[in-house]
Amino acid sequence: MTRLVIENGVFVTGDAVRPVVKGYMAVEGDRITELEEGAYPGQPGESNVQRLDARGKLFMPGWVNTHGHAAMAYLRGYGDDLALQVWLSEKMWPNEAKFTAEDVRCGTLLSIVEMMKGGTTTFVDMYDHMDEVAKAVEESGIRAVLARGVIGLCPPEEQDRKLQEAIRFAREWNGKADGRITTMMSPHAPYTCPPDYIERIVQAAHELDLPIHIHMSETIREVEENVAQYGLRPAAHLEKLGVFGRPCLIAHGVHLTDDEIDILCRYDVRISHNPGSNLKLASGVARVPDLLAAGLLVSLGTDSSASNNNLDMFEEARLAALIHKGVSGDPTAVPATVAFRMGTADGAKSLWLPDTGVLKAGMKADFIGLDNNRPHFYPRTDYVSHIIYSASAGDVTDVWVNGKQTVKNGECLTLDEEKIKAEFQRRYEGIIGR
Amino acid sequence: MTRLVIENGVFVTGDAVRPVVKGYMAVEGDRITELEEGAYPGQPGESNVQRLDARGKLFMPGWVNTHGHAAMAYLRGYGDDLALQVWLSEKMWPNEAKFTAEDVRCGTLLSIVEMMKGGTTTFVDMYDHMDEVAKAVEESGIRAVLARGVIGLCPPEEQDRKLQEAIRFAREWNGKADGRITTMMSPHAPYTCPPDYIERIVQAAHELDLPIHIHMSETIREVEENVAQYGLRPAAHLEKLGVFGRPCLIAHGVHLTDDEIDILCRYDVRISHNPGSNLKLASGVARVPDLLAAGLLVSLGTDSSASNNNLDMFEEARLAALIHKGVSGDPTAVPATVAFRMGTADGAKSLWLPDTGVLKAGMKADFIGLDNNRPHFYPRTDYVSHIIYSASAGDVTDVWVNGKQTVKNGECLTLDEEKIKAEFQRRYEGIIGR
Repeated sequence: MTRLVIENGVFVTGDAVRPVVKGYMAVEGDRITELEEGAYPGQPGESNVQRLDARGKLFMPGWVNTHGHAAMAYLRGYGDDLALQVWLSEKMWPNEAKFTAEDVRCGTLLSIVEMMKGGTTTFVDMYDHMDEVAKAVEESGIRAVLARGVIGLCPPEEQDRKLQEAIRFAREWNGKADGRITTMMSPHAPYTCPPDYIERIVQAAHELDLPIHIHMSETIREVEENVAQYGLRPAAHLEKLGVFGRPCLIAHGVHLTDDEIDILCRYDVRISHNPGSNLKLASGVARVPDLLAAGLLVSLGTDSSASNNNLDMFEEARLAALIHKGVSGDPTAVPATVAFRMGTADGAKSLWLPDTGVLKAGMKADFIGLDNNRPHFYPRTDYVSHIIYSASAGDVTDVWVNGKQTVKNGECLTLDEEKIKAEFQRRYEGIIGR
Repeated sequence: MTRLVIENGVFVTGDAVRPVVKGYMAVEGDRITELEEGAYPGQPGESNVQRLDARGKLFMPGWVNTHGHAAMAYLRGYGDDLALQVWLSEKMWPNEAKFTAEDVRCGTLLSIVEMMKGGTTTFVDMYDHMDEVAKAVEESGIRAVLARGVIGLCPPEEQDRKLQEAIRFAREWNGKADGRITTMMSPHAPYTCPPDYIERIVQAAHELDLPIHIHMSETIREVEENVAQYGLRPAAHLEKLGVFGRPCLIAHGVHLTDDEIDILCRYDVRISHNPGSNLKLASGVARVPDLLAAGLLVSLGTDSSASNNNLDMFEEARLAALIHKGVSGDPTAVPATVAFRMGTADGAKSLWLPDTGVLKAGMKADFIGLDNNRPHFYPRTDYVSHIIYSASAGDVTDVWVNGKQTVKNGECLTLDEEKIKAEFQRRYEGIIGR
């Protein structure tokens, strides 16, 4: 097996024991096998070693984006700054309804190029035509946790068909692409799925032994409607339906009471915090300092580029570190180290991928290299601070996922970026024109 | 005179009459002379024309950063996530006190490199050792509005010395560097300058016929102390001292009552909104939608990279567009077009530079080019939306200030970036070690 040794680098590990290592890292197969201070000593009689001089590069675990809908890239910039209902009913839904499987494939590929080049090595996708998404993941080399998002506001036969499709997809793709793909079951949200349908999806998740991913409490309005319709706020409602009896990741969780936080703690429910999307759609500011204080696992997601409008996880981590300070009045709220962890190690844990998200011998080799020589990385004070408060996706030069390099000097090695962009623009015009 | 013609570009003009032009722009000397749709027709017998094929590039006015302290780059990442008083008294002030004139020169150069490469063509600087800042501006080719920031908490002789220095600097440099430098008078803040000292600075500004730049109402605490000490909130206090009798730009303006907004309106006081710094230091969220509704001129500033921690104006514009939506619950608050204007045309107007900030025949040629071919600029929907919600400093490839190119293909033409970074790091170590 070829051994890759990255020498003379600065490694921001995410490991509390050794947060920064100035030295070398070795990778064999899909794993990190060594991460040590100082010069690489070499090994007696070593052959099959690829040595990479990484002077001026800063390495960190790849970002883990725990919530999104990659194919929605078609609707980036298509009707911003509108009231939420107008945006959804006039801009999003009518166009999404026109997406074909091929549109989803190409839209997902564009988002994967953007994410990988920007340093994301794992992403969550909840959408339709998921076989196409899975194939795009397989081809690109990225890691992903995928779920067919099921909306249950439809006749029983359609409900049945969607549920069977979600089950088939989850079963068929779990563990595929050298283990880079895992799957979840996804009732879209309490407000788009009748209770009995959610219960059926939970039952299927039990049978498949898979986690559940669901939108919850993104807006005040959906919380109020949940109370009006079911007499319960969303967390209690989902608890009652057994959703939290499965390992569960909720997206958003903006509007939560103390009682709801208690419920989430009781079941170790994971929360994907999507600050960019929550701000842009004016959904509000999640109670992240309270969620963290309660011991909940909070990670970061971009949501789709229709409501963000990019897939830059540096920006998401920066927003998480900034807004809770500004809104709470406490400059120590969500420090840089916490935002870093939310976007990397805690993201990985939130997706039940415990051997990714940290640079350490024995972990999966999912990591990224940044050009550490740009002016905004000076002076050499605090690397984590620079990553969170100063860097951005454009600083990423190299990406490895599962031990394989997917981006080199800013070029995507696994996908034909120019071809994808051209096809994407053609398809966009087709969708809007239809 | 050589005529530069940029062909086949997309020009986001900032001009309400023609917000986007797909065509060509001509520059002669320091001015834009033509900006037209379609292919460049050429001129009969033209010579001395430099034609630039700008396919795949998006042009816009350069960003105008209306508040900052460039030399503080040394303290980027040096003690983040601390309570404000601890950060100031233990991290900032003791180190700033050690800055020599040479430190300020080099620190300012590093920030200018960062700003220019990131698409800022005009910046405000309020600091000490301002001759060094002016020389750095002159050398670099950037445009700047400069003021010796004066803190008056010192003995009378020192007050006198500082005031004379501020006057000398303002007089000597105003209009220099081909007109790229203009100057202001800067009492640092109501809480760092006794009232009579502020009045003397105002008097000097009258005599020099220059505007005033001052920090105001950044934190709740300083507002409360102003009320306790002087019986007035800061806006009424500064009104009484005659500050607003001069053209005036205030930095921050986070904590303002309706009455204070009325005062600012009465005097057409300009406000530099610094969302990144205000969030990071937990100062709060300025009432930007209310300020705009009142008809005030609101622009954008990064503040220093010690409290930001970069000088990326795309990020500042994005924050301005995002946080006021999230905090107010109104997704139509501060739309992309408004954030764009705040960072460009309204910034220029705020600095009394009415012939910059917009791409239009007759305006100064301060503009930037972005690589419009990156995945986050797809699809070709709304260019202003992409600039505000999706782009970042790293997308800038080319910069012109006053008709001269200062950045080309991401390389700074006027300054030796590598030399500056190396010296900056050495000086940083010297400052911290002293």
